[in-house]
Amino acid sequence: MDGRGALTMLKMEDGALRKQLEFLIELDRLKTIVRQSRIVSHSRRENSAEHSWHLAIFALVLADHAVVELDALHAVRLLLVHDIVEIDAGDAPIHSSTADKDGLQTAERNAAKRIFGLLPQDQGERMDAFWREFEEAKTPAARFAKALDRLQPLLLNVMTDGGTWTENAVTEEQVVERYGPTIEAGSPALWTAARKLVAHHFAERRNL
Amino acid sequence: MDGRGALTMLKMEDGALRKQLEFLIELDRLKTIVRQSRIVSHSRRENSAEHSWHLAIFALVLADHAVVELDALHAVRLLLVHDIVEIDAGDAPIHSSTADKDGLQTAERNAAKRIFGLLPQDQGERMDAFWREFEEAKTPAARFAKALDRLQPLLLNVMTDGGTWTENAVTEEQVVERYGPTIEAGSPALWTAARKLVAHHFAERRNL
Repeated sequence: MDGRGALTMLKMEDGALRKQLEFLIELDRLKTIVRQSRIVSHSRRENSAEHSWHLAIFALVLADHAVVELDALHAVRLLLVHDIVEIDAGDAPIHSSTADKDGLQTAERNAAKRIFGLLPQDQGERMDAFWREFEEAKTPAARFAKALDRLQPLLLNVMTDGGTWTENAVTEEQVVERYGPTIEAGSPALWTAARKLVAHHFAERRNL
Repeated sequence: MDGRGALTMLKMEDGALRKQLEFLIELDRLKTIVRQSRIVSHSRRENSAEHSWHLAIFALVLADHAVVELDALHAVRLLLVHDIVEIDAGDAPIHSSTADKDGLQTAERNAAKRIFGLLPQDQGERMDAFWREFEEAKTPAARFAKALDRLQPLLLNVMTDGGTWTENAVTEEQVVERYGPTIEAGSPALWTAARKLVAHHFAERRNL
């Protein structure tokens, strides 16, 4: 029996649970979406599923540093959901110069419609609302989640000889410009610390 | 600059944030802990970080099927934390016959002490309490989380030609015995569905 046979079997089940299990099986594909960041061991690049787990723990641990008091578990929920659209739309590297922003937004909206559409309607709409809340970054939880989504790859780069910065010849000024506003909007305290790490990293590189 | 240099830099920061960032960087190692289950694409085995993400989404999506009403986000929190001890203690395969249960428990307790001990004391104690709540499986959220931790590899096996069951020549009766009680204790509805998938899988195999 292959996977398709099992999915056919799931179709024999009635009601919401069948749809929920199909959705959860579809999500497994996020484990195959490879990001640019390397994991700390340097052994390989990170995938979007393990990245999402790491970010969810960042939210649990760092919530007290947010610019305003917020519901840490709601930020966790946004981060668990935020990259699911990459199953169809792929990961958009921060240092890519060829990004087609409009095309990407359309691809992500279509992905959200297809993937969250696998769920029972009310639940799919709630998941879609979490994803949109993250994307729009208008609520405190979403702004904090976005800040962590920038802070985590910054830390991985610092831990892996500059990672994607070194690979793409990104300057200290470009790092400050590309990471700073998003991190600072969610947590000035985290940006103060991250800025020091970035300064230290580039000072070390200049001394090589 | 290597990772150690960056950690030394973090030590220059004062207070709680330095400890929290060191903890979060240490957690990156969970991405290198490889489980027995294969991901749905069959391409490789799953790691414990992406497994934890998948389970957290299982909890968000399936909470209404729990045996009693519970706080889904608390179950999410338990699942985000539940495998962190594997960074030191490794993953214990369900179908291994050589498991040293007492030795494993000691290794996991020591791992929890070391890893959660990286955090500021009060936060480390809270994380340790989440991990112990999961392990003890006495609260509704923990029992539900444990049920999902059995359901997810069951689904992956069904989707990958029997996965670890086929590799280890595990029988249908052994599957029922090893997965059933834990899933049923958290969610009779999920066990009813999973039992049907298991029956279908083994019926298909007999017809090969």
